[in-house]
Amino acid sequence: MGSPVHRVSLGDTWSRQMHPDIESERHVQSFDVEQLTNILDGGAQNTALRRKVESIIHSYPEFSHEDNYFMTQNERYKAAMRRAFHIQLIAQRLGWLADGRELGYAYRALSGDVALSIHGVFLKALRSLGTEEQIAKWDPLCKNNQIIATYAQTELGHGTFLQGLETEATYDAATQEFVIHSPTLTATKWWPGDLGRSATHALVQAQLICSGARRGMHAFIVPIRSLQDHTPLPGITVGDIGPKMDFDQMDNGFLQLNHVRVPRENMLSRFAQVLPDGTYVKLGTAQSNYLPMVVVRVELLLGEILPLLQKACVIAMRYSVIRRQSQLQPSDQEAKVLDYQTQQQKLFPQLAISYAFHFLAVSLLEFFQRSYSAILNRDFSILPELHALSTGMKAMMSDFCTQGAEMCRRACGGHGYSKLSGLPSLVTKVSASCTYEGENTVLYLQVARFLVKNYLQTQMSPGSAPQRSLPPSVAYLAAPVLARCPAQRAADFLCPELYTTAWAHVAARLIKDSVHHLQTLTQSGADQHEAWNQTTVIHLQAAKAHCYYVTVKGFAEALEKLENEPAIQQVLKRLCDLHAIHGILTNSGDFLHDSFLSGAQVDMARTAYLDLLCLIRKDAILLTDAFDFTDQCLNSALGCYDGNVYERLFQWAQKSPTNTQVVGWNYKLRKKAENRQRTLPMRNI
Amino acid sequence: MGSPVHRVSLGDTWSRQMHPDIESERHVQSFDVEQLTNILDGGAQNTALRRKVESIIHSYPEFSHEDNYFMTQNERYKAAMRRAFHIQLIAQRLGWLADGRELGYAYRALSGDVALSIHGVFLKALRSLGTEEQIAKWDPLCKNNQIIATYAQTELGHGTFLQGLETEATYDAATQEFVIHSPTLTATKWWPGDLGRSATHALVQAQLICSGARRGMHAFIVPIRSLQDHTPLPGITVGDIGPKMDFDQMDNGFLQLNHVRVPRENMLSRFAQVLPDGTYVKLGTAQSNYLPMVVVRVELLLGEILPLLQKACVIAMRYSVIRRQSQLQPSDQEAKVLDYQTQQQKLFPQLAISYAFHFLAVSLLEFFQRSYSAILNRDFSILPELHALSTGMKAMMSDFCTQGAEMCRRACGGHGYSKLSGLPSLVTKVSASCTYEGENTVLYLQVARFLVKNYLQTQMSPGSAPQRSLPPSVAYLAAPVLARCPAQRAADFLCPELYTTAWAHVAARLIKDSVHHLQTLTQSGADQHEAWNQTTVIHLQAAKAHCYYVTVKGFAEALEKLENEPAIQQVLKRLCDLHAIHGILTNSGDFLHDSFLSGAQVDMARTAYLDLLCLIRKDAILLTDAFDFTDQCLNSALGCYDGNVYERLFQWAQKSPTNTQVVGWNYKLRKKAENRQRTLPMRNI
Repeated sequence: MGSPVHRVSLGDTWSRQMHPDIESERHVQSFDVEQLTNILDGGAQNTALRRKVESIIHSYPEFSHEDNYFMTQNERYKAAMRRAFHIQLIAQRLGWLADGRELGYAYRALSGDVALSIHGVFLKALRSLGTEEQIAKWDPLCKNNQIIATYAQTELGHGTFLQGLETEATYDAATQEFVIHSPTLTATKWWPGDLGRSATHALVQAQLICSGARRGMHAFIVPIRSLQDHTPLPGITVGDIGPKMDFDQMDNGFLQLNHVRVPRENMLSRFAQVLPDGTYVKLGTAQSNYLPMVVVRVELLLGEILPLLQKACVIAMRYSVIRRQSQLQPSDQEAKVLDYQTQQQKLFPQLAISYAFHFLAVSLLEFFQRSYSAILNRDFSILPELHALSTGMKAMMSDFCTQGAEMCRRACGGHGYSKLSGLPSLVTKVSASCTYEGENTVLYLQVARFLVKNYLQTQMSPGSAPQRSLPPSVAYLAAPVLARCPAQRAADFLCPELYTTAWAHVAARLIKDSVHHLQTLTQSGADQHEAWNQTTVIHLQAAKAHCYYVTVKGFAEALEKLENEPAIQQVLKRLCDLHAIHGILTNSGDFLHDSFLSGAQVDMARTAYLDLLCLIRKDAILLTDAFDFTDQCLNSALGCYDGNVYERLFQWAQKSPTNTQVVGWNYKLRKKAENRQRTLPMRNI
Repeated sequence: MGSPVHRVSLGDTWSRQMHPDIESERHVQSFDVEQLTNILDGGAQNTALRRKVESIIHSYPEFSHEDNYFMTQNERYKAAMRRAFHIQLIAQRLGWLADGRELGYAYRALSGDVALSIHGVFLKALRSLGTEEQIAKWDPLCKNNQIIATYAQTELGHGTFLQGLETEATYDAATQEFVIHSPTLTATKWWPGDLGRSATHALVQAQLICSGARRGMHAFIVPIRSLQDHTPLPGITVGDIGPKMDFDQMDNGFLQLNHVRVPRENMLSRFAQVLPDGTYVKLGTAQSNYLPMVVVRVELLLGEILPLLQKACVIAMRYSVIRRQSQLQPSDQEAKVLDYQTQQQKLFPQLAISYAFHFLAVSLLEFFQRSYSAILNRDFSILPELHALSTGMKAMMSDFCTQGAEMCRRACGGHGYSKLSGLPSLVTKVSASCTYEGENTVLYLQVARFLVKNYLQTQMSPGSAPQRSLPPSVAYLAAPVLARCPAQRAADFLCPELYTTAWAHVAARLIKDSVHHLQTLTQSGADQHEAWNQTTVIHLQAAKAHCYYVTVKGFAEALEKLENEPAIQQVLKRLCDLHAIHGILTNSGDFLHDSFLSGAQVDMARTAYLDLLCLIRKDAILLTDAFDFTDQCLNSALGCYDGNVYERLFQWAQKSPTNTQVVGWNYKLRKKAENRQRTLPMRNI
């Protein structure tokens, strides 16, 4: 046990000198950290490959982002563009495949700080919505950098509600072309990444109009900049939307199209075609065009969103064993802040979520991969469950990761406010995920529709074993109801069966409650749409409880598969218990409401929770070490593996342009002001 | 009713053209907006004065911050420094007093985007801790810009726990000087504003050592930069700490002192003196030196923290009547997003808090002003209550304003992520307040100590009318206990008496619970400090409930004083009801735990809550208009008074340096990469 953890040294003065306060945390290891890392990576061979890629990436000075925090938006963008081309070069040299693991690991090592990521989204959309001929034509052009493409969906006046998109694509049978047009200011495409300054082509989502009929949203490949000199093509107004909360490396842009003509073949036609004469042929469902969004959402979870929380956990946890404050006993040395119960309460639930979401996202990805080829072959039966799971998990993970990263940031006090801690950029980055790829409230309400529909199904066919027809994630709606939680003491709450059932009970009750509210309103004469709107606050609550249930159940099931690793299973089970019980305590009203739990049982759960904090304490650093982020990737003065927090913070601050660019200026300004004021007569307002 | 609202036009193309979707919101006014503005300002004459100052400020191009979002940290700092001197010049010209209302209004008009604000904190500390002679010496030097001073307390290794500060001030009787010294790296002063590049002097908080004894933290005036050429003085290492999450205009700095000598008179000596021979004379209490922090905390609430949430509310509310998304009815036009229940649920509780906190902060400020001169004259009897209220309110307001501003930001979807919306900077600014001037968890635990102490007092003297000796804010601890809430229908929850009692009940129960937990642990053999630590999660919960009770009670009491303004009283009462009930629903477990509320009563509260959302809807824009922020001060493309959101967003984006500084560069980069890749041989990893 306790094999040495992989390290890629920062190569600075302190990297070789371990701070004793963090060294002592790694002295006794109750489980094999390396083994846990392997599990997270999906096997030791993956860990080895990832580390090899990281070593390659970190060996190139082009990929260093240690000066990120000092750069302007333009500097960040230029650096990220150079990295994007440099990594393609390396990938070519080393034979990394476009969809291979190596590029994913490289992206992780670069913390996503690389341009042209939406170029990748374009490719996914092409592969989801394009015919084989279209894929064969456009895919190689992208790969060879002959074109740079983006995915242009969101508009200035329209986001998540896709039916509201205003951009039009009108088919002209005379020339066999589509006329792509932005009819209003609000139809301006707004936000697409890589669009502002980089893209030569855009996959434009637009309302198809052919033979006089509106056919809904379809995707069209539109050249927007000259391949000769990169200037905008005729009819195209394009630019950057300016400063954002983060994502400086990405040129989110705007695009106005003034009757731009593209050939008929430029409409992606896997699920719908327009024949030369303008006849519309539908091959998929109304939802087919949303497929790229499902693909992107599922891959976002592990690739973009979750690592931001995990890194925040690593940084905050490591800092919390170096930072000392106040005494636990009057005569003692000041205590590590991680020894305070309130600090544990801040950080450990985030650590638990980091693991819960990992296992859930992996299983969702596997489920998606199993389903994807069926969908491409126009078998849409699995789509409702996949859609409900992916939207719910995207909404919940982005919500919780955002809250959690901010909690980690604040748990580092003042230094968490310094960009050099790495935490502000994690927070401002992850909080974007609550909005992009579907605004979370809208997504939760889509989950709620799925829940209501399935709940009503259990009610409609009481005799016909409805549970068989329910998708697995909502099978609990047809399960027998337990009116009271059987827990009799605190330890009873450390049982996955007990708390999974508790969460199922609460989710089912809230769904039932929302349906009841909806029905009461319609029975009292309200219009169904108005009734839906007047129930959405309750629907949200139900959808969130359902999603929490899914995470608890998923974590518990993942643990069962670790029976050959009892030490790791034990330490992760504590996190699973904590995750479930923390959720119960945070939402205790939902459990007390119908007396499923009594006040005394909530107190038992609290006792179990506080005891878990103490147990997790001793493994906390190891559990964050297991994520195996390199120091370069964390880019944090507070979070390096060696724990030399203050030395690094002091030295990094010296590098700031604020210490070189404004020297000598202040004195003159003050003197001038001083002199002016001395000569001024007093005057009243 | 409905007198025209004051406006200072942005002077752009759209300012004179009201968007019909926002105009219609102001068409029918159920109360007099101008009158409410007067109430918020503390009288019509204040409103008039404020607007006069705003007109002056907005007339100077020096004070425009419309390009803020495009500036680097250094540019922001330089602009803020120029503004600081320019405003002093104007103040001199117009005869504005240093503590007068005009400067406060000017600061508000500038959104605090001005340098040298810590210079002001220095002055407050000087006036709190200095003798009359010391004030007479240093105050004029500051006012005439002969010196620029900062307040240097926090260290690299120590923040809120002041006893842990390491900087030492050792008295040398031979020369009658103090030797100020940073004995370690972690003793480096870190974070003080105006220190990095501006200050010539620092008020250094250091551990006093005289006649061989350590006497705790005291304040010393230390010259740090040459008044001749602004270079650091001998023994001084000083600089800027680099990039932060926000506050680019402020040069937060670091300071190391290497045996720097200052004369004996430079120790501020209102509450403690060192005589020439080194004899220490104590004139105050151990807490006296914390007085400047109380002063700053109380003034922060109205001056810094609350306006950030109020502005976020204004922006999000105005955008929410312009933004349309989806249909409420299939055949309808797309609906204003503010008509969705979920959007109301996001924004209206923030609006309610904005008002609740306003009235509370005003009454706290009045309480403070009544007490301050007594404290300066060494009557410390009121200090515990003042300290508990100011720490509790600072913690709660900064927490809620941070959550609230982020909620407003997210409620604006993607555009809330653009810096041009103004929302990201409101969020990143307000979130600093959770840490500065005392980290919130530490502050809540100080409140908890106060609560435990007062609760124990009610237990110790059951026969001697203990309520008389309890400070007013905790008098409820001695009030008769109501075991069950009497509510029988939803409308019963619209009663301030009922919900104030409910909050008192829950706060008292949680305080009792925390004491019980503490006593159980000590009785089972735990050491008292360990027992305290193991109860802090529960203490936090109790302290938060107490603070919430204080806000509900304070809001209800403020409403009683508005009986001469029935229309305003009615509309604000809805916000008060919403604030109280929203808190009950969010924490329903605490109310259900001992069956004070039943599940059925929680459902009644929810009905009342949902009904309130509908009622508040029609006044929502007017209630945010009443804050009367100028468009310049909001600096938001989404939040201008006229509602021309999309036009402004589009135009502002064109001004971004991202649209001018990187043109033509992309093409060469792509071509280079394309050519390189074509010539590369394939190679495997």
